[in-house]
Amino acid sequence: MAELAYAYASEAYGSNPLRVQIPPKANMIIQKQRKTEYSPKIRIIPIGGVEEIGRNMTIVEYKNDIIVIDAGLQFPEEETPGIDYIIPNTTYLEKNKSRIKALIISHGHLDHVGAIPYIIERIGSPVIYTTRLTKALILKRQEEFPHAPKLDIREITSADKIKINENLSIKFFDITHTIPDAIGIAIETPMGNIIYPGDAKIDRDSKNNPIKIEQYLKLGKENNLALLLESTNSEKEGFSVTEETVRKTLENIFRKVDGRIIVGTFSSQIERIIEIVKIAEKLERKVFIDGFSMKANIEIAKNLGLLKFKKENVLNVERINDFPPGKIIAICTGAQGEESAALMRIANKKHKYIKLQNGDSIFLSSSIIPGNERSIQNLKDNLSRQGARIIHYAVADIHASGHAYSEELKMMIEMIKPKFFIPVHGYYFMLRTNADLARSVGIPKENIVVPFNNGVIIEVDNEKITMLKESVPANYMMVDGLGVGDVKEVVMRDRQMLSQDGIFVIITVVDSQTGKVRNSPDIISRGFIYLRESQDLLRQTRHLIRKTVEDATGKMHPINFTYVKEMLKERIGKFLFQKTKRRPMVLPVIIEV
Amino acid sequence: MAELAYAYASEAYGSNPLRVQIPPKANMIIQKQRKTEYSPKIRIIPIGGVEEIGRNMTIVEYKNDIIVIDAGLQFPEEETPGIDYIIPNTTYLEKNKSRIKALIISHGHLDHVGAIPYIIERIGSPVIYTTRLTKALILKRQEEFPHAPKLDIREITSADKIKINENLSIKFFDITHTIPDAIGIAIETPMGNIIYPGDAKIDRDSKNNPIKIEQYLKLGKENNLALLLESTNSEKEGFSVTEETVRKTLENIFRKVDGRIIVGTFSSQIERIIEIVKIAEKLERKVFIDGFSMKANIEIAKNLGLLKFKKENVLNVERINDFPPGKIIAICTGAQGEESAALMRIANKKHKYIKLQNGDSIFLSSSIIPGNERSIQNLKDNLSRQGARIIHYAVADIHASGHAYSEELKMMIEMIKPKFFIPVHGYYFMLRTNADLARSVGIPKENIVVPFNNGVIIEVDNEKITMLKESVPANYMMVDGLGVGDVKEVVMRDRQMLSQDGIFVIITVVDSQTGKVRNSPDIISRGFIYLRESQDLLRQTRHLIRKTVEDATGKMHPINFTYVKEMLKERIGKFLFQKTKRRPMVLPVIIEV
Repeated sequence: MAELAYAYASEAYGSNPLRVQIPPKANMIIQKQRKTEYSPKIRIIPIGGVEEIGRNMTIVEYKNDIIVIDAGLQFPEEETPGIDYIIPNTTYLEKNKSRIKALIISHGHLDHVGAIPYIIERIGSPVIYTTRLTKALILKRQEEFPHAPKLDIREITSADKIKINENLSIKFFDITHTIPDAIGIAIETPMGNIIYPGDAKIDRDSKNNPIKIEQYLKLGKENNLALLLESTNSEKEGFSVTEETVRKTLENIFRKVDGRIIVGTFSSQIERIIEIVKIAEKLERKVFIDGFSMKANIEIAKNLGLLKFKKENVLNVERINDFPPGKIIAICTGAQGEESAALMRIANKKHKYIKLQNGDSIFLSSSIIPGNERSIQNLKDNLSRQGARIIHYAVADIHASGHAYSEELKMMIEMIKPKFFIPVHGYYFMLRTNADLARSVGIPKENIVVPFNNGVIIEVDNEKITMLKESVPANYMMVDGLGVGDVKEVVMRDRQMLSQDGIFVIITVVDSQTGKVRNSPDIISRGFIYLRESQDLLRQTRHLIRKTVEDATGKMHPINFTYVKEMLKERIGKFLFQKTKRRPMVLPVIIEV
Repeated sequence: MAELAYAYASEAYGSNPLRVQIPPKANMIIQKQRKTEYSPKIRIIPIGGVEEIGRNMTIVEYKNDIIVIDAGLQFPEEETPGIDYIIPNTTYLEKNKSRIKALIISHGHLDHVGAIPYIIERIGSPVIYTTRLTKALILKRQEEFPHAPKLDIREITSADKIKINENLSIKFFDITHTIPDAIGIAIETPMGNIIYPGDAKIDRDSKNNPIKIEQYLKLGKENNLALLLESTNSEKEGFSVTEETVRKTLENIFRKVDGRIIVGTFSSQIERIIEIVKIAEKLERKVFIDGFSMKANIEIAKNLGLLKFKKENVLNVERINDFPPGKIIAICTGAQGEESAALMRIANKKHKYIKLQNGDSIFLSSSIIPGNERSIQNLKDNLSRQGARIIHYAVADIHASGHAYSEELKMMIEMIKPKFFIPVHGYYFMLRTNADLARSVGIPKENIVVPFNNGVIIEVDNEKITMLKESVPANYMMVDGLGVGDVKEVVMRDRQMLSQDGIFVIITVVDSQTGKVRNSPDIISRGFIYLRESQDLLRQTRHLIRKTVEDATGKMHPINFTYVKEMLKERIGKFLFQKTKRRPMVLPVIIEV
């Protein structure tokens, strides 16, 4: 029953959520504020990442100064078909861009850096502070945007301190995540530090002792006003699997394999890739890299000295068939079942160099990103159909999450000892669960605020933390092809409707004098019924179109074509529903001649 | 490392999958066969349920006789937008309907009975054999289809034996699932029994001893030729949570709750609902039922004597506000986040009688059906935003799966002692994992066949089991509104395309004499861009339409309008892509005047 405590989240944090409504437009703060209006308190505004996993962005604001932390993207969802990405809403920052003193990036994963190319100019191209590898990854990605301006990135390490002005400084601390050079952020204010570890876990050594916690402990001695802590794994009990365990498990299993080893992972799991290359050298297997981003990231890691290997030990996948099975480890993208990634091409027998054979073992070294369950199942099924062995993280410790489990989150809170606590990064229920963890290690209820939505304004000073009634715009900003923010809810709604029952366009040529329909009306339909097998329905529909138009125009002088179109839409829609119980989008066009 | 064994599935079962291809049309057996062609072996054909969870249907065929087991449906997937259901393909059965001797239904869940109203006439309205509750549920559902014919259902119990003819008899055995009256099926043939437990688990008592296994043990003494065993939880290690544990956990937690108790579950989890009603009477709480199907199922269970309660203890949800919080247990549909179900209406503050208040505890007593992850997250978030406590199955044993975990599957195999083994019900990888379980309890590799696809033909006799190269049609049969099977792949493809970048219809009136464009071309677009904010693009597009048409027609006498349309489609498509990097479906219409 101990577990149950964390699921209970009956108490309201900060203010009673029952009374907090999604703010109406009137309460939206989007204009630049006059200096005299500035709150004497520190404002923390999560622009993205508190209603989802992804598109992380947090604003820390004190008087005239704004510091932006992270600029991530989120992948499209069921409700946003056809778009490329969802990014944080920059309306508020655009209006206040002259106040932005810095954009700080905690690490190089897309949910923290991915929005930079789309938003950096919109928010006035502020200076970006980040670590060496993160900088390299940002610059690499920027190359994909040929018209994007040059970025002003200043490289920092955990030893640095950036003084913004007499009120604000930014310090950093080392944390553990699944990518090197991930860094925690501490913003020094006159009232104390605002701490943001970003995505972090507490790793342990082979004796189960926590490692790399010195900087947390040191930080814990300072005056820490508020902790913004990620909630991704707040519902997961205990501790995450250690990297040591993953390393050992991979090595042990690899040792027992005679045939080829194929590892599917993310190109962004650079720590894991580095480990696999090390194990490969130990086992005297060659590493074959497949996937554009995988190659690019290994190149970057190598150039920065994060990864060392003999040139002849890491090869392009083209050469895989020159070596015996027992000498091969291939590292491929696509462990999430991404459509055109290397692993999916292998599964679908479309890979140019890797055809599965008996004795192949495939390791899926990544967890399932919510929403990808079906694609991963499909991937596993198709790989398995070809006779491959599949070892996935659920059956062996070949993957460790980079996000702290509940006991690690509690450790972080206890080490940092913040006065106030704000859970971030996750769905609302995860944030609530994280808040419960904070309660359980002694943070009083009134010192915790759970962001109710993206865009909420949280005010904090030495005395108190509150969530304001006002908020800043935080609805979806969507990237679709070349358009950023130009795809609106109405377009999304139309796409969803079209995907349900298709479209039915009626084109009628009408004599504007007599109101008579000339020729047979044209019908264009897609996604509704298979037209070739529905000639009878089409004939009846054409008949009804003619009748509807002529019934309407017969009594009209002059003819109100808008009215006739409305009539057509209604009657044909009703007729098609009667006949098929489907509701295609009916669009009538009348050509007057 | 013990776990790993089950993930390994490198060896091929029955035949080498590397050589088995998805059969071309030429190999399809769809015609009625001549008597002289009948195989002297028993044929087992999984029509649905071996590439998915759902639409279960299996054919057992011996000489002239066909027995069909189950007729389930599957809910739509990402690739099948807008449809209602996917059902088993009946092409083969339609051609051979005169040979069908019986449709046997193992239990009353939709993935086993849901296709009956759509297919029963198509396959010649065979006699249905099933148990009492299953019969009542089938008849209840049939009422929703007013034009459906009367079904011929014969009620059976595990004591019955149906003699089809001198070759075939059907016997039954009791099994445990989450619905009463679920039953296992044994088809007696001259070569031995074909055993199909359906969806089943081995439950245990409070001393952890397996219960209700007598009939398995008895069956194990017979000559059991082949076992068709479900694979839903084959990847789950150990034993499933017992119903006893769920009962006790629910009662213990309920006891500690002062406020209202709201339980979200499926209306089809009748065993669970029965237990909750019992606990409620013990704790002197009234039960309030919400959801149409929930009410109907409780009514049915009551009428059959499966559920006994005092009338005044189970009330309609309308009366919930007449009682104090401590006296209330509400049972609602919608634990999977179904859009209009009771729990979702509560979450969205649209429920007529239940408004959440502090002190409410919500129990989600069902596991997550793959594909519903996002809706359930959304449900939890919105319930949690209103301050409710949420207790879900991952944090407390308030739900038990009705499907055997790996150790239970192994027990079943060991008790039944079949000669041959065919895993069914699940994605391919789950089937493979189940096959590995069978190996681990001594079934030889050559006695196992893993169905490669739906529609494969498995032949078995006393000597051997093989998977033929031929198969029967098993592609999706879709139910969409009134249409059954009339929505084809092309319609699905169009719906998917429309949902990606929308549609762009161009209507141009062209003078058939001069080839000149009259007036400004009409453009109708949905789901592509927000037209009101794209006036400039539309203007340029109209200009290009006119130019394209007149460039083409200028050189033509007579005008080839098909060619002009092709030109328009290509050029406008290319132009829109250049400008937006989106590819709407471009449909040109030319009106000749």
